[in-house]
Amino acid sequence: MKRNQLKIAVIGGGSSYTPELIDGLIRYYDQFPVAELYLVDIEQGAEKLRIIGDLAQRMIAASGKPINLHTTMDRREAIRGADFVTTQIRVGMLDARSRDEKIPLSYGLIGQETTGAGGFAKALRTIPVILDICREIEELAPNAFLINFTNPAGIVTEAVSKHTRVKSVGLCNLPISTKMQIAELYEVEERQLFIEMVGINHLNWTTKVVLGGEDVTDDFLHKIAGASGFSMKNIPDLEWDAQFIQSVGALPCAYHRYYYMKDEMFRELNTAFMETGKTRADDVKEVEAELFELYKRPELVTKPPQLEKRGGAYYSEAAVQLMKSIYNDSGDIQVVNVRNGGIIPCLPEDVAIEVNCVIKSDGPHPISLGKELPPQVRGLLQIVKAYEELTVQAAVYGDYNAALQALTLHPLVGDEQLAKSLLQEILVQNAAYLPQFKSREKQESGK
Amino acid sequence: MKRNQLKIAVIGGGSSYTPELIDGLIRYYDQFPVAELYLVDIEQGAEKLRIIGDLAQRMIAASGKPINLHTTMDRREAIRGADFVTTQIRVGMLDARSRDEKIPLSYGLIGQETTGAGGFAKALRTIPVILDICREIEELAPNAFLINFTNPAGIVTEAVSKHTRVKSVGLCNLPISTKMQIAELYEVEERQLFIEMVGINHLNWTTKVVLGGEDVTDDFLHKIAGASGFSMKNIPDLEWDAQFIQSVGALPCAYHRYYYMKDEMFRELNTAFMETGKTRADDVKEVEAELFELYKRPELVTKPPQLEKRGGAYYSEAAVQLMKSIYNDSGDIQVVNVRNGGIIPCLPEDVAIEVNCVIKSDGPHPISLGKELPPQVRGLLQIVKAYEELTVQAAVYGDYNAALQALTLHPLVGDEQLAKSLLQEILVQNAAYLPQFKSREKQESGK
Amino acid sequence: MKRNQLKIAVIGGGSSYTPELIDGLIRYYDQFPVAELYLVDIEQGAEKLRIIGDLAQRMIAASGKPINLHTTMDRREAIRGADFVTTQIRVGMLDARSRDEKIPLSYGLIGQETTGAGGFAKALRTIPVILDICREIEELAPNAFLINFTNPAGIVTEAVSKHTRVKSVGLCNLPISTKMQIAELYEVEERQLFIEMVGINHLNWTTKVVLGGEDVTDDFLHKIAGASGFSMKNIPDLEWDAQFIQSVGALPCAYHRYYYMKDEMFRELNTAFMETGKTRADDVKEVEAELFELYKRPELVTKPPQLEKRGGAYYSEAAVQLMKSIYNDSGDIQVVNVRNGGIIPCLPEDVAIEVNCVIKSDGPHPISLGKELPPQVRGLLQIVKAYEELTVQAAVYGDYNAALQALTLHPLVGDEQLAKSLLQEILVQNAAYLPQFKSREKQESGK
Amino acid sequence: MKRNQLKIAVIGGGSSYTPELIDGLIRYYDQFPVAELYLVDIEQGAEKLRIIGDLAQRMIAASGKPINLHTTMDRREAIRGADFVTTQIRVGMLDARSRDEKIPLSYGLIGQETTGAGGFAKALRTIPVILDICREIEELAPNAFLINFTNPAGIVTEAVSKHTRVKSVGLCNLPISTKMQIAELYEVEERQLFIEMVGINHLNWTTKVVLGGEDVTDDFLHKIAGASGFSMKNIPDLEWDAQFIQSVGALPCAYHRYYYMKDEMFRELNTAFMETGKTRADDVKEVEAELFELYKRPELVTKPPQLEKRGGAYYSEAAVQLMKSIYNDSGDIQVVNVRNGGIIPCLPEDVAIEVNCVIKSDGPHPISLGKELPPQVRGLLQIVKAYEELTVQAAVYGDYNAALQALTLHPLVGDEQLAKSLLQEILVQNAAYLPQFKSREKQESGK
Repeated sequence: MKRNQLKIAVIGGGSSYTPELIDGLIRYYDQFPVAELYLVDIEQGAEKLRIIGDLAQRMIAASGKPINLHTTMDRREAIRGADFVTTQIRVGMLDARSRDEKIPLSYGLIGQETTGAGGFAKALRTIPVILDICREIEELAPNAFLINFTNPAGIVTEAVSKHTRVKSVGLCNLPISTKMQIAELYEVEERQLFIEMVGINHLNWTTKVVLGGEDVTDDFLHKIAGASGFSMKNIPDLEWDAQFIQSVGALPCAYHRYYYMKDEMFRELNTAFMETGKTRADDVKEVEAELFELYKRPELVTKPPQLEKRGGAYYSEAAVQLMKSIYNDSGDIQVVNVRNGGIIPCLPEDVAIEVNCVIKSDGPHPISLGKELPPQVRGLLQIVKAYEELTVQAAVYGDYNAALQALTLHPLVGDEQLAKSLLQEILVQNAAYLPQFKSREKQESGK
Repeated sequence: MKRNQLKIAVIGGGSSYTPELIDGLIRYYDQFPVAELYLVDIEQGAEKLRIIGDLAQRMIAASGKPINLHTTMDRREAIRGADFVTTQIRVGMLDARSRDEKIPLSYGLIGQETTGAGGFAKALRTIPVILDICREIEELAPNAFLINFTNPAGIVTEAVSKHTRVKSVGLCNLPISTKMQIAELYEVEERQLFIEMVGINHLNWTTKVVLGGEDVTDDFLHKIAGASGFSMKNIPDLEWDAQFIQSVGALPCAYHRYYYMKDEMFRELNTAFMETGKTRADDVKEVEAELFELYKRPELVTKPPQLEKRGGAYYSEAAVQLMKSIYNDSGDIQVVNVRNGGIIPCLPEDVAIEVNCVIKSDGPHPISLGKELPPQVRGLLQIVKAYEELTVQAAVYGDYNAALQALTLHPLVGDEQLAKSLLQEILVQNAAYLPQFKSREKQESGK
Repeated sequence: MKRNQLKIAVIGGGSSYTPELIDGLIRYYDQFPVAELYLVDIEQGAEKLRIIGDLAQRMIAASGKPINLHTTMDRREAIRGADFVTTQIRVGMLDARSRDEKIPLSYGLIGQETTGAGGFAKALRTIPVILDICREIEELAPNAFLINFTNPAGIVTEAVSKHTRVKSVGLCNLPISTKMQIAELYEVEERQLFIEMVGINHLNWTTKVVLGGEDVTDDFLHKIAGASGFSMKNIPDLEWDAQFIQSVGALPCAYHRYYYMKDEMFRELNTAFMETGKTRADDVKEVEAELFELYKRPELVTKPPQLEKRGGAYYSEAAVQLMKSIYNDSGDIQVVNVRNGGIIPCLPEDVAIEVNCVIKSDGPHPISLGKELPPQVRGLLQIVKAYEELTVQAAVYGDYNAALQALTLHPLVGDEQLAKSLLQEILVQNAAYLPQFKSREKQESGK
Repeated sequence: MKRNQLKIAVIGGGSSYTPELIDGLIRYYDQFPVAELYLVDIEQGAEKLRIIGDLAQRMIAASGKPINLHTTMDRREAIRGADFVTTQIRVGMLDARSRDEKIPLSYGLIGQETTGAGGFAKALRTIPVILDICREIEELAPNAFLINFTNPAGIVTEAVSKHTRVKSVGLCNLPISTKMQIAELYEVEERQLFIEMVGINHLNWTTKVVLGGEDVTDDFLHKIAGASGFSMKNIPDLEWDAQFIQSVGALPCAYHRYYYMKDEMFRELNTAFMETGKTRADDVKEVEAELFELYKRPELVTKPPQLEKRGGAYYSEAAVQLMKSIYNDSGDIQVVNVRNGGIIPCLPEDVAIEVNCVIKSDGPHPISLGKELPPQVRGLLQIVKAYEELTVQAAVYGDYNAALQALTLHPLVGDEQLAKSLLQEILVQNAAYLPQFKSREKQESGK
């Protein structure tokens, strides 16, 4: 990476999150001096991209930073020679997410963007597009880092790691948010804390909290029960049972509620849907519509506070921190999604995991956990990871058998007849976005 | 083991299964010449033991084999110097089993003797008693093999392996039954088949079928879908979906129905209970009452055909085959429960697994699987094994946290509030049989 | 494999060992009824093949067994449709072996056919030829088993396993000889013993001896020190030090003398060479010349007793036992060379190891060791295996760097300048047989 | 650790190295404000301790830093409540080292302080004393970190890790020196480099060099061949062969010369000894005598430049950097000796390794290597580590068998008769320092 020539390509640049990212790039410009910034989107997103591009241009101008902004629909141009490619795409847009949330509900199951059957459908749609992007990176920017925000971020990162040569890192705002919440709980600065997080994206346990050299994990687990928060904007903030937390011996992440509190979570989601006819996707659509109206205002030259309602708090923070640390060879510790490589010995070597990594100029280096995971963590982690492996296989090859086994195995589905019907509906409703399965049907009918 | 001095102790000798075992010992006498046979039981089983003892004596007399039969309530006398100790005990008797089946149903969950919350409760009751027996074996017959039939056989074997120095083997009639059914399907002799079974007790996949040197697994998986059977007496014989079996790439065992068909299985069990007010335990009680009436008849000198209804087909076959092969250093292959030791690399070294073993005079030696388990097998196996590890920990130490996590983790429970209520009811209803948890309460209240 | 159509191809059929094999095939004909037996050799071996072919024909005729014997130089014809292909080839013949033994001596190192620098040179010459044979098997007899006697048998088996799809088993007479010697020591039948052998070809420890169900390993280790034997015809029979054997905790194999007694072994070999100007290869040449004279005699219709001097005692026994057990799906235990697959966890998964295997119709299945190897066994095993992995890489790809590292790593070489000179001489003296290294030189000079 | 109360105990405070350490503590005082500094030594070291104590006092006084210096022979007083305990002891003093160097030479083997038979003898003498110190730390300063410089640092660290509950880190100046040499080679600041070092103490490969985000390892391996240096004061600086370095694919450490160039290294050591009758220990004795004369001079108030000749360059740098980073929770990367825990998967979990670690307030956290070690690195590493495991066992339990196997296994010994004689001489000549072996003899003679 050459100073003064730093180039970033943002795939899905028309996203409503982009002002967050622009804000971050401006704020950290001194340590991470982006020279060329490409926002790229597809035809259907042209209008949004135009609005975002205009806003971004105004923000940059107001900041006085010499960042050259480009908006384009030519992805290859954006990727060529980039140092970092970030992806924040949504294949099928919010309508597809809405279906991902509703289909499972109609089978009496939790319908969620990234967890369970909804996340599975999203993975099937997303992975082929990401792999296409990776082919272009391999050709046009082989030294670039792919910073993948696109959900399900862990599964997508695993697909990239298994099927391409691209240097990729999966990123989520959950770890950084958790760390901030713990710092708040202890009324200290984040940097005073050393937190061990172990697991996979959206299924991640905080297994150790060190404050000033002292292991305060036990104390933390007592404190946490009564404390509010430790959730995300998009997840009902049910309170953890104190005794249960003690028996886990670690703080489950916000998404664990879908597993550990699956009955109550289903009721919450289902009741909300029954009463309003809407799911989170529909709310987000409204928020986004408002946001884009706001973004259009010529007087707006900063990230508007309303963006926080959207839910991606700290997303740009996480992204800019990561790119900045790679650029500067910082050697600080961040929780990101990387290839396992033996760090979690009870999972296969080649899967994606989410753990503490030292961020150096050649990317993230996971750090040792030093102890084995207890059975209660290991068992759930293993079955969900096996589901993810099958999902990657299904998404890459259009492998029906892998897809059926993925859904059957998932703890939120678990019954083969249910899985079969659900899969059928997912395949039909997403047919426009699943070319890998279409070719399979053709092959079979051609026999 | 010295010829002419072969001694066997049968703990739980008053079981209705015992005539099966006597029949097997008589049939195989030439290869396995038992000299001293001790049937031992507890005070509450005295009457049954007397009936069984008399029948066994008549059977032996009719056979003309020189087996010295002893019935006793002195367990130490029975164990002292034994070459084999077999256990077929039921702590809390059929009443406890009935509760194990009913409690989960009342929470909308599958209630089954060995699987799920029912098996969990049975493990908590059984393990302390088995460990007591093991202390006596360590003292009085340190070279004896413990042949454990007592369910949940895998969990109990793991507890013995982790917490004693006794040479133990866990035994189930499912593998031998499956092999017989496959032989029948192919219309060949069992010995013409080589079958690879992989997993843990009651969660075991048939991953390979070799017939005359040829790997016929694919053909087998096609054949199996339409075939009836491949179930056990105590499990509703729901038919496997052809496509699903293909996607597994292996034949699941009969007990897999509780996982893969959990919705339908629950309906079957619940409907039956709602209609009759009875569970399988209650049926078994009636069958047993009839059997004992039959056993009393002085003219009965052979195993009566009605015993088959009881459900333990091939149990004695499995047991006698195993003991005979150890005694004769046969080197044949049998599927039994042993310490993993790396044979299934995705499970911890020290857990119990159920796989092909070569039976030599020093016990079973597991044989290599030669390939890794696919994710769909691995994921389910790992979470259930983690549940089992937690259950052993709960049962041995009266560890409430481990118990709560075990139930929460189990795929047939999976929700923490549900698990908590269920655990409370299990602990209360089984209080008489759970001294390990009582001492814990005392300790806590004593603080 | 179809009864009455059993076909065997013997590559290197002109070997002086072949009468052993013929003898075995005749003796075990009833259990292993070979219908078509092809002896195949290369042009240079035509005369030997003719002599062996005639003798074999006389032996078969005298036996009255209906085995159709074919001698041919058409390897493809021999392999086509074969059920078993055995290899007993010697690339470069005894002259090459003589060089393998002499070159290291001139550097002050042990010169031995299969161990150290000599075995390394042999592997470089042999592996390309064996891989050629494997390509033909893949094409012409994809279901055949390759039974590889060709030394270094472990390294060759590893090359086949890593670089072809052929079902191969590596075979050595050392394990069967050791077992016979132990049986003799205890004055029992072999079948009364269960012996655990662990390691790799020609570096194998007897870690457990079970006699009649009793572990007599300690007793055995005491007995062994004073006992003579436990060596091979081609290895000086130096006596093991009693205290040393105790400290190993296992019986080293005959070839271990080259490591544990390297100073004395070098003196033995070097003194013999200095005094006579001959190495073992030269002796073997003389023995072979005599043998072939003997073989020519028309009245000879059985394996002559002089063959035993040649050194391959039990080779044919081992080979016929293995093929017979596969053919009959016997399920007996034999020590053969197979892919590790986790049986020895401290070695990589994909390397060849030599351990107890159950022989079934689909080949050998290694059986679990049940305990970890102690450091004294592990350390030596690991470094020699790493040497073997590098040797395979060097032999397959003509990789000079791997070759240099292989020799430097080997405990009998161990110094880089020494390794470099030695390697140079090996490459030059064997140039005619190392096309893989030639093409590399050409590539380099073509740059 | 409480600011203003930081306490350090230096066991072996009378060492000639101590002024280095004092110098470091003064230089880094602002970041690492030591309040109480205890120098402790044994009776035989009283005079040296007095001289060092006086010099240290003068140095501190001259610096104006408020460090309270204590010299004492009461080890318990020094350890009580310490935050860090450092050890730089030499059991048997330089006379013992002299014997360690000479005994192997008399057997035609390399005689070196930490490598081979010499290091083995040192480990036998040192480990019991270190374990005694650890018992006191467990009792008197359970939260203290033990910073162990005492050689053989890796073996000693492994003994502490396996046999005590003390938080220990093993430290060597080799990694920091190597990093400085590489920085010099590239004419950059150290902090611009990211270097991956893998292995165990004194057997460590530099497998990756990253400069400004770019992997320059290949370039580095070419550069290194011609470059001088990359050695240590106490190791003959033989030049690496360019082709050999390429074939390793990594930079061996200075001590690798004893393995890879064992013939030439032996000649160097032996010739020097033959010519002068002295070994390195004898030279060091003279240097030390001069140093202590120097230290006595009242006008000396800084570390004298002559200390560099002694050989421990950067030792205090390494030590103070480590303690400072722990104290400040710095999160920087340092190469230290820690428990493996799966970071090097081809070695056992519980052994000591030397790798990159992130230094946090709770100690070092090893970071993932991301790729497997090649066979040429793995094989040598594994055998030397197995030797170390046996050495720990021998040293802790006085286990003769382990000792004999350790020496036989070591690549610089390798012959059992040689090992046996050598061991006998080591045990006899060090008898005064090997109580663990004495008690064994008594037990045996008492039988």
